[in-house]
Amino acid sequence: MIYQTEYLGYAAGIITTLAFLPQAIRIFRTRRTRDISLLWAFAMNIGIILWLLYGIAKNDLPIIAANSITLMLLMIILYCKVRYR
Amino acid sequence: MIYQTEYLGYAAGIITTLAFLPQAIRIFRTRRTRDISLLWAFAMNIGIILWLLYGIAKNDLPIIAANSITLMLLMIILYCKVRYR
Repeated sequence: MIYQTEYLGYAAGIITTLAFLPQAIRIFRTRRTRDISLLWAFAMNIGIILWLLYGIAKNDLPIIAANSITLMLLMIILYCKVRYR
Repeated sequence: MIYQTEYLGYAAGIITTLAFLPQAIRIFRTRRTRDISLLWAFAMNIGIILWLLYGIAKNDLPIIAANSITLMLLMIILYCKVRYR
């Protein structure tokens, strides 16, 4: 039962991490970010940095791995938002 | 030290949850979702439902609370994306 719950957490983490890939690719290609909220992109970068620090403090590899990838994708999204308004 | 780490987790959770509020408000008001990836919106809804089930299985109130609010906001975003292409 504990094992099944862990798998649920891994599946959730993988999906919410990889979800940012099509969004990052879309705005990187189209260079259009009008409908993306700057506040969302900025707050998400801050929040994911905090999740990453939390993972490092707890020495929790899945949290570190998932949030490293998400942060990379969100940095691309924030860069595009600021660059191509 | 453990307490400080917990606060870090709460701060991260609150920021990545509330980040979706300006994004949901923006596309609900403008009714423009062109630059939002449908795959992102769809995958995020699925992923957050799994995080919610994970929180329920682990009886973890902060995870349940954060992901309930995020799911509500992401359902609005997905609805707008499908409704106003």
